[in-house]
This record gives sequence, structure tokens and C-alpha cells, in this order.
Amino acid sequence: MPFINIKITDDNVTSEQKQQLIQGVTQVMVDVLGKNPERTFVVIDEVNTDNWGIGGESITSRRQQGK
Amino acid sequence: MPFINIKITDDNVTSEQKQQLIQGVTQVMVDVLGKNPERTFVVIDEVNTDNWGIGGESITSRRQQGK
Amino acid sequence: MPFINIKITDDNVTSEQKQQLIQGVTQVMVDVLGKNPERTFVVIDEVNTDNWGIGGESITSRRQQGK
Amino acid sequence: MPFINIKITDDNVTSEQKQQLIQGVTQVMVDVLGKNPERTFVVIDEVNTDNWGIGGESITSRRQQGK
Amino acid sequence: MPFINIKITDDNVTSEQKQQLIQGVTQVMVDVLGKNPERTFVVIDEVNTDNWGIGGESITSRRQQGK
Amino acid sequence: MPFINIKITDDNVTSEQKQQLIQGVTQVMVDVLGKNPERTFVVIDEVNTDNWGIGGESITSRRQQGK
Repeated sequence: MPFINIKITDDNVTSEQKQQLIQGVTQVMVDVLGKNPERTFVVIDEVNTDNWGIGGESITSRRQQGK
Repeated sequence: MPFINIKITDDNVTSEQKQQLIQGVTQVMVDVLGKNPERTFVVIDEVNTDNWGIGGESITSRRQQGK
Repeated sequence: MPFINIKITDDNVTSEQKQQLIQGVTQVMVDVLGKNPERTFVVIDEVNTDNWGIGGESITSRRQQGK
Repeated sequence: MPFINIKITDDNVTSEQKQQLIQGVTQVMVDVLGKNPERTFVVIDEVNTDNWGIGGESITSRRQQGK
Repeated sequence: MPFINIKITDDNVTSEQKQQLIQGVTQVMVDVLGKNPERTFVVIDEVNTDNWGIGGESITSRRQQGK
Repeated sequence: MPFINIKITDDNVTSEQKQQLIQGVTQVMVDVLGKNPERTFVVIDEVNTDNWGIGGESITSRRQQGK
């Protein structure tokens, strides 16, 4: 009964890519732990780059500086 | 001092329904554990059906297939 | 397909109380949104009072002060 | 390698304020635990006031009542 | 800069299996979104079966009933 | 009404350090957003180094390799 939450920046991720993320991480649960995929939930959170920080700066700011 | 996070799909949940969710889960904390409702936080996350997976597929895809 | 995460302090919550929390919040999802309980997950996190803060202090410290 | 998730109501928080939140909490990790800021992630979630409850009511409802 | 949180029941998952979970989900981020693995964090939460509910019951209780 | 969740590795963080983390991040909320500290919750999760991955490896494994 795994629950997986994926947080990524909101960089125009397509529905197809989201499908691949869901399929991929679910398969890892099946392969490694033998989990039932019908009992495996995946939730993807897309986060604005203003709202994600690293190194004490937002991703928006880091990208403007070419980091 | 409970904190409750509810994740649901974004299926046109009304403000009235959100009020009922907040009221209901807060009451459970009061009834079962004697918690102070003024110190009980509830946060509802509404998740796009493209971003919620089960059985290795998005909810969007499952609904298209009538699952 | 709701997912509910309940965070509470680790104050000797019994298995019976956890059952009541799980039963209660699941019922709220059924009553308010018509959700399928077999697709409703609840995860309870019990947090040490050293690790929970409010008002800029840990709960441990607040209790020592009679707050 | 800390990960910090900040949940606040979506009250027109500016990009500048988000930068200050990210900078501030990252600095706390550096000052208290000597963490590497380049390995410190901060994610800010802005939550609609309909979706945040306290005292069994939404923040929207509480503000309408002047609470 | 993905952050992935995996919640599973605490069923004697080995260090080797945890390594495989971490390796597997990180690779999905690389393959699908081209993410930098050195900027991909994975956190595994192991949850006691008393603290995980489905169908309004704890996993502990469901297992006792042979569900 | 902020809620802040801090995830760190379980490296013998002392109660005093936890107090400083709680005090520090709460003060950031007060300084930047004018939030009421009595309505600001902080929850610290200490994560075993087997359960935290970066670069596709657990922290335990990386430390053994001197990374």
C-alpha cells in the first residue's frame, strides 16, 4: 500500500511524462517490494520556481543568474 | 495540536463540502483524542487527475478507460 | 482515492484510538464526498514533543512551563 | 541535506517575501546544524483560505466572521 | 531538483531494498525528466501497520482478518 | 497560520538544537510575513540515513564511501 509523493518544478511537464513518472515509480515498488500496483498511489506536485529554494535562493533567481 | 492533510482529486469540490471536511475531521480529533479544535489545523490539497496515479496509470487515463 | 495524513504528538495513543481515528476520518470522506473507503488511505504520524513546536517553543518546553 | 516545507495561506505573498522565507529558513539550518545550503531545499505551498481549517472552520469563514 | 517521499509499511524492509528503491525512483527522474541525480532527494518513511488505514481499518486489523 | 515541516537526518540532534530550529524558523515567519507565532506549528522529522537518498544512493552508503 505504498504512497509516493513526487515534488518537481512546474517546467511544462506533459501528461505523457506524468504517465511515465507514475508508471515508473509504481514499477519500482512492484519490482523491489512486490507491492500490489492497484494499492500504490502516486501524487505529483508541480511547484512554481519562485516557491522552490536551494542554496538560500529561489530557483527563479538562480536561473536568472545562470546557476 | 493535530495537523491533518487531506489529498483529494480536484473534482469540483465546493466550499460547502470543504467546510464539511474540515468540520468532520476536526470533530474526530476532539471525540477520539480530546484535542482542542482551536489548535487543530486541516489543509486540503486538490490534485489534478493527471497528477494522481494508481495501478501505474493516471486517474485521467483510468477514467477514459472506464475504470 | 483520498489520502489523509494525521500528525499528532506521541502521547500514548492506543491501537484502539488509532482505529477510531482511521474509521472516523474515512467515514467523513464517504459522507461528504462519496469516496470509496477501500480506496481511502490514512497514515498517522506520532511526533515526539521535542520535535513539535508552537509559539517558537517545543511542546516539551511548553508543558514544563505549564502552558 | 535538509528539506523544509512551508505551508502558508495564499495572501498575495510576493516573490521578494518568498526569497526572504527561503533565505531565512536556510540560514537557520546553517546556523543551528551547520548544514550545507547548496544541499538545503525549501518548498513553499500557498494554500487557498477555503482549503485551510482551524477550529473546525475554514479560514475564509473565520475571516468573514472577523475571527 | 526533485524530492520524492515514499511511504510504506514497516515490514522488515532491508537496507539493500531501500538502496534499490532510492536507485530506482531516482533513475525514473533521470529517464523521464532528465533530472540531475545529485539534486534528487528521496526520503522513505516506514509506517507501523497500526498507523496505516485502508477501508476504515488499520492494516494490523485487516491482516488479522486475513484481508 | 503557517505549518513548517523540517526533514533532517537523525544525526544526534539535541533537544537544544531542536529548540533553536523551532525558534529560528518561527521567527522567520514573524519577520517576513508578520505571522502570529502562537498559530505557527513546526514539526521536525529525523530520518535514518538508510532512508534518505541522494544521487541514487543512501546517505549511509555515501558516507561509507567518503562522499
